[in-house]
Amino acid sequence: MSSEVNRQVFIVELPRGPLEERHFELREAARPEPGKGEVLTRTLYLSLDAANRAWMQGATYTAPVEAGAVMRGGTLSEVVASDDPAFAPGDVVECASGWQEYAVHRPVELRRIEPLGPLTHHLSIYGGTGLTAYFGLLEVGQPSSGETVLVSAAAGAVGNVVGQVAKIHGCRVVGVAGSDAKCAWLTQELGFDAAINYKEGPVYPAVKQACPEGVDIYFDNTGGEILEAALFRMKARGRIVCCGVVSQYDTANPSPGPRGVPGLIVTKRLRMEGFIYADYDARREVALDALAGWAREGRLVAKEDVVEGLESAPRGLIGLLHGENVGKRVVRLAPEAG
Amino acid sequence: MSSEVNRQVFIVELPRGPLEERHFELREAARPEPGKGEVLTRTLYLSLDAANRAWMQGATYTAPVEAGAVMRGGTLSEVVASDDPAFAPGDVVECASGWQEYAVHRPVELRRIEPLGPLTHHLSIYGGTGLTAYFGLLEVGQPSSGETVLVSAAAGAVGNVVGQVAKIHGCRVVGVAGSDAKCAWLTQELGFDAAINYKEGPVYPAVKQACPEGVDIYFDNTGGEILEAALFRMKARGRIVCCGVVSQYDTANPSPGPRGVPGLIVTKRLRMEGFIYADYDARREVALDALAGWAREGRLVAKEDVVEGLESAPRGLIGLLHGENVGKRVVRLAPEAG
Repeated sequence: MSSEVNRQVFIVELPRGPLEERHFELREAARPEPGKGEVLTRTLYLSLDAANRAWMQGATYTAPVEAGAVMRGGTLSEVVASDDPAFAPGDVVECASGWQEYAVHRPVELRRIEPLGPLTHHLSIYGGTGLTAYFGLLEVGQPSSGETVLVSAAAGAVGNVVGQVAKIHGCRVVGVAGSDAKCAWLTQELGFDAAINYKEGPVYPAVKQACPEGVDIYFDNTGGEILEAALFRMKARGRIVCCGVVSQYDTANPSPGPRGVPGLIVTKRLRMEGFIYADYDARREVALDALAGWAREGRLVAKEDVVEGLESAPRGLIGLLHGENVGKRVVRLAPEAG
Repeated sequence: MSSEVNRQVFIVELPRGPLEERHFELREAARPEPGKGEVLTRTLYLSLDAANRAWMQGATYTAPVEAGAVMRGGTLSEVVASDDPAFAPGDVVECASGWQEYAVHRPVELRRIEPLGPLTHHLSIYGGTGLTAYFGLLEVGQPSSGETVLVSAAAGAVGNVVGQVAKIHGCRVVGVAGSDAKCAWLTQELGFDAAINYKEGPVYPAVKQACPEGVDIYFDNTGGEILEAALFRMKARGRIVCCGVVSQYDTANPSPGPRGVPGLIVTKRLRMEGFIYADYDARREVALDALAGWAREGRLVAKEDVVEGLESAPRGLIGLLHGENVGKRVVRLAPEAG
């Protein structure tokens, strides 16, 4: 069942421009042994996130990723052996084991999961993705029924959940995505009111057409040109939820900020606010109950994009940065998982 | 006492670059007569504000200023004749008569003032200036004792009041201003903890030195380089109060936005928020009571910069845009005022 070898993906060089497979290396080490009070886990699923690339740019809300180490990443894992009474073999836990098959953790680094559905859902709608969408939209964005919500990277992991939760709250929802197929999925499958393929032409006219009365909430996963277009289309007292900047991650030379900052913030009395879902940990259970309820009612669809095998993780992350995925991209490590 | 002539300053051409005196023209018209239900006012003081220049750039929170009309502006005026029972000759009112000696108003355009001190205080600490500082700092900024507050255009009308109110709330206050004399006034007279002359060198290193632990609240009156420096120096969960953008008003070509938007907003979970004091009208009396209390106790100093004569208004506004004033700049029209 569990081999004596621990396959690991190292980041061997930090990218100076776009991330490439040569920045990673698959290595084998001995399976680690848990020490006193520690827990040995086996990785079932690895979460791929645009933020993984941001960590390579320097300090964010967490320490930067440095070359020469196992690549960092969130995981859904199974306890193999435990010297802590709170965890037993077979328990499923959320942790950040990184890109490797086995890891040793202190108990404080683990959160036990009571499965609410397929395990992958704990990386999508019930994981950081779903909680980011939930708290960002509802707590930071403060939507009211009838308001217009614009969301970028709308077919991505967080964006599609934002749009679905906004629809549940009675909003008019417009998504921005990078292909006609993604746009069709958003409007035909998820019930978005409109979708814009930003690769088809200038963004601002398309946003203006799709949001004729302006935008109340812009949920920003991208920054860049889409943020600038949104700023110019915001209604007075609009809210911009700053969740991510994927347009600026895969580069060593981020663009200047959008025009309209701070001029339009002043004249339209906008609020732009950043957040991370961990700041709302006290209300995590409330959020999970709501998300699970909507999923049971069929109003919230979990869309996952599963990449097979640890060795595919570099290619999977690079593809994600190029907009390849629809929904939440995860890597399945253990063949028996899921 | 009141002549039959109404001297008026027109804006005859909208500036395409920096504002100049040639964009204005002093003209004489007949004194207007109030119609049924109307009130005739005589201007005592005219408020000069950086926003006057912003209005020439296009729509803001109010309609744009257009060429060929009396220049718009806030005023403190005296009722000369009234066909409304709520106003009587001699009443002092706050209104927006523009750059002229007499104006006819509907009663809804007037707010009667019960003088809390010298009349000019109703354009400085008890006027839009003081209320902007009060609501911006306290409601948008949400300061806590011990936090570091950085304020730009700190020797200007709003900035100096922001710093004083922040000191009253137990904050550490650092001002950014455009001359050593202004900086000395801020630290020696107003009790600021430090002041930075932004014309002396790059802003970021000076902000870093003056705010070694980072910035909790940045009250932004300028935008531009100072905003960018502040963004890079903000602490996690810091607040940027977007009040004005004076660095970008006196030009037809506003700069791109600062670097770090939205990247630093995401990673530091910042809040950037615009406001206008009129949005807080329901709490106006609470604010005025607080401001008047601090003034009586000698903890809040009203600093005014009085320009004499309507004909000096264009020069006064141009000078303000070049940072000439210390404190609130007003134009005194009636020789017997004050």
